[in-house]
Order: sequence, then structure tokens, then C-alpha cells
Amino acid sequence: MEKAVCLLSGGLDSATCLALARRDGYQCYALSFDYGQRHKIELEAAARVAAVLGAERHIVAKIGLDAFGGSALTAPIDVPKGRSASEMGAGIPVTYVPARNTIFLSFALAWAEVLESSHIFIGVNALDYSGYPDCRPEFIEAYERMANLATKAAVEGRTRVKIHTPLLQLSKAGIVKLGAELGLNFGLTMSCYDPGPDGAPCGQCDACLLRRKGFDEAGIEDR
Amino acid sequence: MEKAVCLLSGGLDSATCLALARRDGYQCYALSFDYGQRHKIELEAAARVAAVLGAERHIVAKIGLDAFGGSALTAPIDVPKGRSASEMGAGIPVTYVPARNTIFLSFALAWAEVLESSHIFIGVNALDYSGYPDCRPEFIEAYERMANLATKAAVEGRTRVKIHTPLLQLSKAGIVKLGAELGLNFGLTMSCYDPGPDGAPCGQCDACLLRRKGFDEAGIEDR
Repeated sequence: MEKAVCLLSGGLDSATCLALARRDGYQCYALSFDYGQRHKIELEAAARVAAVLGAERHIVAKIGLDAFGGSALTAPIDVPKGRSASEMGAGIPVTYVPARNTIFLSFALAWAEVLESSHIFIGVNALDYSGYPDCRPEFIEAYERMANLATKAAVEGRTRVKIHTPLLQLSKAGIVKLGAELGLNFGLTMSCYDPGPDGAPCGQCDACLLRRKGFDEAGIEDR
Repeated sequence: MEKAVCLLSGGLDSATCLALARRDGYQCYALSFDYGQRHKIELEAAARVAAVLGAERHIVAKIGLDAFGGSALTAPIDVPKGRSASEMGAGIPVTYVPARNTIFLSFALAWAEVLESSHIFIGVNALDYSGYPDCRPEFIEAYERMANLATKAAVEGRTRVKIHTPLLQLSKAGIVKLGAELGLNFGLTMSCYDPGPDGAPCGQCDACLLRRKGFDEAGIEDR
């Protein structure tokens, strides 16, 4: 069975991506990050999802991105609420974390090399995304090209790094439908940028609004 | 004055690189990593070098690369000693840390974005290096291309990421000569992979041997 490193935030997209990698027969090494995000509820969700989907291992790498600041997810800046689709489409929001996917993929690359694995799964999405530059196909292609020049395993020909982005061209509704087909228990996942003290999603941040729209359009209940 | 993020290990190469960036008029933000390396003496050296060379700030980012294992620098594998130049040239040694420069550059990219800086300095060297794939010019070029697709600042045109590698084509002797010209106090730096409990270099690991050869060939005393 081939090994794959699967980036897992605990949200709907990365959980669907992990479920797909499992369905396709990969032995999955799930990787999450404690990057100084203001709430840790998503890490609890990631641990639940990794266990239920049968990941071989789950590592939470601690990386102090909060040392740099610059994002509503790591610094004391308000998370935007109740934005319309056109407001969300009008630029990159303050919830953007500088170079986040670049950093996440780099850790995945390190672990893949140690595992002698050629496969990295990331649940990025270029359609119903929040305008993040590091979710675009041109970024992923450039990253993959760089990765194949970066590691001993790739240079020595033991691996050929492939960044799998099975959700890249799906709408949020398409991701919901795929998750349902794969039998994903949506209740295990957590998308909200700003959950309440009890862990309940706020319902008003971009992530909550995009999630609700996706389930509505898919005609599937979020539970 | 333009800002630059300067990767700083505390060794001879990165210290020379920082000295050069300072000489060229950059306001320097020095970035070191506590990546689970077995000795922290190099981090003390980095702090001394950053202070003496007048870095604007010095951050030590804690990143748990030891969670993945796979290197003599982070796992309990013996550091090779007393190797000849041909042995050093015969493959990538166990002191290679998986995807290290990819990860280091990704953190530098994040900090550069927050600082709205276009400049990242890294003291990699493709000649008298230890055979690491992520020290080669083709890796650096691919990284720079990816970086300019990765960040909000680059995509919005506020920065144009440039990875500066002023030592790339220098021999170790050339780096020593450059350091001397720049007035670098070599005694502040620390290259050894396996220092003694008193912090003294072992004198026999690849890094110590390359350093000694560089000073010998430059006809300069290492102090």
C-alpha cells in the first residue's frame, strides 16, 4: 500500500480529501499544525477525523507563526462577519495567514521524505475559496516543481513528489456531495474561524457562510 | 532603508551573508530555528552574531522537525567524523535534514510578507557544500518562482520576492576572505555539527573539516 502525507485542518475540505485518499487505497499520515491559531478546537476535530478515517498516524506539528503576526487567525484582529459573496470575492481577507500553505506543504514534504512517500494530499480549492493566493493551481504546480528539486529522496530518484489536490476544481457543494458519497461524518469536522467558548461555530464568518452555502446548494444536511 | 529577512544559523556562511546584507544597506531581520537539533550552541552563536552585526530583530522560530526524524542532526544517529573530501563528495550525508531549507525559506517568506519586504538572504553554497540538494541554484530558482505565486503581497504586486544567495558560487576559502573583508569576527560563529559539552567544535565532522580547509586555503586564521 502506498503511503501518503495528508494535510488535515479538521475542516470539511481536508477531511473530504483524507477520506478520498483512504478510499483510493493510500496508507495515510495525517499532519496538522498548531500554528498559534487563536482556537484549538480545529485540532480536536482533526484528531477525531484522523482516528475515524483510519489514518496510520496523526502528528500535530507546533510552529510559532504567531511570532510574525499579520493575520486575524493568529493576531488580535477581528474576524470579518456576515460578508456577502461579492465582499468575499473582493480581495484577500485578513484571515489570510502569510505563506501558510507554503509552510504546511514544506513540513509535509519533510515527512514524506522520511517516509519515502511520493504523495502529499492537500484540500485546497480554487473556486469557492476565500481568495487565498496559495490555493491556486499555478501555486500548486510551482510548489511541486520546487519540491522535486528540494529533497534527497527526489534528487536520488527514490520519490517523485506529487501534490494531490482532488478538490481544486470543485465547488463547495461539490465537496459536500463528494464527502457524502465517501460516507464522511460531517459532524466530526469544524470549519469556523471564530467558534464560541463551547466550540459552536459562529455561523457568520466567511468559512461558516461558505460551508452553509455549500450544504444548501448540495441539498444535504450538515450533520 | 530596505528590509531583508536573513536566515541565520550562527555558522560562518550565514554570518558572512548577514554581514554582506548589512554592508549593502539592508535593515536586517535575522531568523533562526530551534528545529529539534541536538545542540543549542548554534542558537547562542546566532544571537551573538545578530546582535554584533546590528540586526533590527532576531527571532528564533521553534519548529518540531524532530517529530519526523530522519537526520543525524535531529535523531540519535552518529554524526560522521574524519571523512575525506572524496567521501564527502560521494552522496548526501546523514546530517541532511529533510526539506530543511524549503521549510526555513517558507518561514522567511511569511515574515517577509508581514514586513512587506521583498528580500530574503540565505547563505547557501553550491561549491564546498556537503551535497545537500536544497543548496543548489536550480532549487533556489524554483523556490523563488513558487514564492512569487504564494503570497498576498506578491500577488497584489507590493513585493517581488528575491532570494539572495551571495555565497552560492564561492568556495569556502572565498567565503572566509569575504568575511574577513567585511570585518566579521569569526570567533562569534559556530559551524560544528557535534560540539563538546563545553561548546568546543569537534574538529572532525564535515562542517569542521570544511571550515578548517577554507581558512587554510584563504591563509586566514580562524578566530
